[in-house]
Amino acid sequence: MAQAELLVVKIGGNVIDSPPLLALFLDSFAQLPGPKVLVHGGGKLATKLAGQLGVAVQMHQGRRLTDGPTLDIAVMVYGGLVNKNLVAGLQARQCQALGLAGADLDLVRAVRRPVRDGVDYGLVGDVRAVNTGALRALLDQGTVPVLAPLSHDGASQLLNTNADTIASEVAVAMSAHFPTSLLFCFEKNGVLASATDDDSVIARLDPASYAGYLADGTVSGGMVPKLDNAFAALRRGVRQVYIFHAQAMPQFGQPGFVGTQITGGHE
Amino acid sequence: MAQAELLVVKIGGNVIDSPPLLALFLDSFAQLPGPKVLVHGGGKLATKLAGQLGVAVQMHQGRRLTDGPTLDIAVMVYGGLVNKNLVAGLQARQCQALGLAGADLDLVRAVRRPVRDGVDYGLVGDVRAVNTGALRALLDQGTVPVLAPLSHDGASQLLNTNADTIASEVAVAMSAHFPTSLLFCFEKNGVLASATDDDSVIARLDPASYAGYLADGTVSGGMVPKLDNAFAALRRGVRQVYIFHAQAMPQFGQPGFVGTQITGGHE
Repeated sequence: MAQAELLVVKIGGNVIDSPPLLALFLDSFAQLPGPKVLVHGGGKLATKLAGQLGVAVQMHQGRRLTDGPTLDIAVMVYGGLVNKNLVAGLQARQCQALGLAGADLDLVRAVRRPVRDGVDYGLVGDVRAVNTGALRALLDQGTVPVLAPLSHDGASQLLNTNADTIASEVAVAMSAHFPTSLLFCFEKNGVLASATDDDSVIARLDPASYAGYLADGTVSGGMVPKLDNAFAALRRGVRQVYIFHAQAMPQFGQPGFVGTQITGGHE
Repeated sequence: MAQAELLVVKIGGNVIDSPPLLALFLDSFAQLPGPKVLVHGGGKLATKLAGQLGVAVQMHQGRRLTDGPTLDIAVMVYGGLVNKNLVAGLQARQCQALGLAGADLDLVRAVRRPVRDGVDYGLVGDVRAVNTGALRALLDQGTVPVLAPLSHDGASQLLNTNADTIASEVAVAMSAHFPTSLLFCFEKNGVLASATDDDSVIARLDPASYAGYLADGTVSGGMVPKLDNAFAALRRGVRQVYIFHAQAMPQFGQPGFVGTQITGGHE
């Protein structure tokens, strides 16, 4: 029997913020055959709640700096509101979803990020271990894990961890159990050669072309850590990585699919 | 081999609001041998957040009326902040905890409560089914489910359900799989004969004495649905029900234990 392929699919905050896009995505995600994991962000809802509560949001290179009140907001929005509504939406689509944060089943163990280059990220976790045994047991039972971007330190402290990083680390760790594909779904058609042209999708991106796009500014901002994660995932054993619009989920692996494949991280 | 006894333990919002009491409780809960489930409320934190967000909280006979914004707060606080911090605290105590809301694994399926006696409770769920197979599978693996007081309707809608009710319904449903004990831990020493005397614990309460205490006002307010749940649970197959202070958890089943045993619901 050929071993099943595992899909680790990450959706960004913009997908969650758009109910019609989210519904379309969930329809197709629920129908994907075989083992699968959903990882989600949820940026704008957290920012909105922080504003309502008078908690200042600080960003550094596309990543959120996390003090105590900001962590509580992340736990409430990512671990609660977004996660449980995604699970309820998947259950309504006959998908046996289970929402998880990093502390659940000791799934994503992290250490608090040390101060680097004068930047204290606060309560942010750098992933140290993924409980692949627990994830595998869930997948073998047909359960679909839905992961919030939260880790923990094993000593009662929850930590904020970038959702792309969670997706990447889970895909890398699970590559020991399954041939694993990592799919980043967001609100653009892929990595664009021209930021203002949605049709300028770069079909394949390798380390050399990435270096060029970085140098000329084609790729910048939040796309940088996403692509760094993608290449690192390929180097660490993930079979394939794609970046595409959440609305293209139904076409993934089919003719007519539009998106960017990240390749050649293995050298 | 004698079948293991299942403990379903519910902690109230006042326990969660007191860090030292909560730590003491988690220490003893983590050490309980055998299969166990933790069910939690989280009242004051939700009320506080509602106040900060300008969402009015409406109560009716000790139960929260739930509109859309109030449900979101419940999902954030109960399903997120409280649930995930409890899980992180248990993981730090080497307890393989898994936080769950009713939508996770289709664990607690409910129907939205119909308007009765002119009262529309809003997005409140009356429990219709507990997924005992999924819970049993988790317990058989040594996992400790931590349940937030949330249900779902199977059609994407999360619903608010009283934590005592979740605990009671789960204990009743699991009685088909395990001899099950239901323990309500809160901030008083038990059911008190005199509200102002913490030492006036009624050691055993049966339907006849309960009727008397109801008639003379000894038992009132939020204790009424708690005790109604308790007697109903006994009638529906739960082996034993106790109500006691969270700080008495280490003494449960030991000499010196102080609390109220609810008895005689079986006639």
